[in-house]
Amino acid sequence: MDKFMQLAIEEAKEGLEEGGIPIGSVLVKDGEVVGKGHNMRVQENDPLAHAEIVCIRNAGRIGKYNDTVLYSTLMPCYLCAGAAVQFGIKEVIVGESENFEGASEFMKEHGINVTDLDLEECREMMAEFILEKPEIWNEDIGE
Amino acid sequence: MDKFMQLAIEEAKEGLEEGGIPIGSVLVKDGEVVGKGHNMRVQENDPLAHAEIVCIRNAGRIGKYNDTVLYSTLMPCYLCAGAAVQFGIKEVIVGESENFEGASEFMKEHGINVTDLDLEECREMMAEFILEKPEIWNEDIGE
Repeated sequence: MDKFMQLAIEEAKEGLEEGGIPIGSVLVKDGEVVGKGHNMRVQENDPLAHAEIVCIRNAGRIGKYNDTVLYSTLMPCYLCAGAAVQFGIKEVIVGESENFEGASEFMKEHGINVTDLDLEECREMMAEFILEKPEIWNEDIGE
Repeated sequence: MDKFMQLAIEEAKEGLEEGGIPIGSVLVKDGEVVGKGHNMRVQENDPLAHAEIVCIRNAGRIGKYNDTVLYSTLMPCYLCAGAAVQFGIKEVIVGESENFEGASEFMKEHGINVTDLDLEECREMMAEFILEKPEIWNEDIGE
C-alpha cells in the first residue's frame, strides 16, 4: 500500500487507542511528510480538530501548498475540504468514502484531484467506530 | 451598531495589538455569546487559526449549531465557510467583504443566510493591515 496512506492509518489507530475518532491524515510535500495528525475532538474537546486540520496545523506555516498532497483515511468533510481549497492543495488521496461521502464534488469543482483508494482496512475501522459510538460520530460531522 | 459585531471588532483590534491579523469573530446562541476569538496565525504560528475557527473552537463542544449566528469582521474564506456549512450554522453576519470576497456564494448555496454590514470601520482596519503587511495577508489566504 501507499506508504503515506499507511502512515495516515497508523495515525487513525493512535486516535482510536486514545479513545478518539479513528481518522488520520498526512501532508506530503516533495515526497516528504511535512505534517501528520489524527482527529482530536474527544481528546482535546475541540470540535474543529478534524484529522486533516490537525495535520495541516502540525505542518506549520509552510507557505505554499500547491505542491502538497493531503492524505486522509476518510473523505474530507466541508471544513477540511474548505481548508484544501483555500490553501490551494491540488491533490487529495483518501482511504475510503463509503462511511462518509464528504465534500468530494466540492473539491473537484475547485480543481483538486481527488483519489479514493477504497481500502477495506479504512472502511472497516470507521464502520466499527460508527457502530460503537454513533453519538460521537454524528457530533463530529455536525448531525 | 450590532453589539455582537462590536465584540468581533474588539477581538480584531486585540489581534492587531498582538501583532496579528485584525480579524475577529463571535458565535452567538440564543442571544448569548458562546465563543469569541481572533486570527492567531502570527501569534501561534498556526495557519489554520483563522478568526472564525478560533471562535468556534473556543465555544467548545456545544452540540448543535443550527440556532447559532456566526459574526466575523471579514467575509469568511473557504476554510471558515466550510466549517459553517459542515456544522450547520444557518446565519453568518460579516463586517465587510470589500477587502476579501471570501466564500459568500458557497455559503448561500448551502442555505446559509449571509448578511454583509459593509462597515467602514472594518473595511479601513483591514485595508490598512493589507497595505502594511501584504505578505502575511497573502499567506493567510493561501496566495
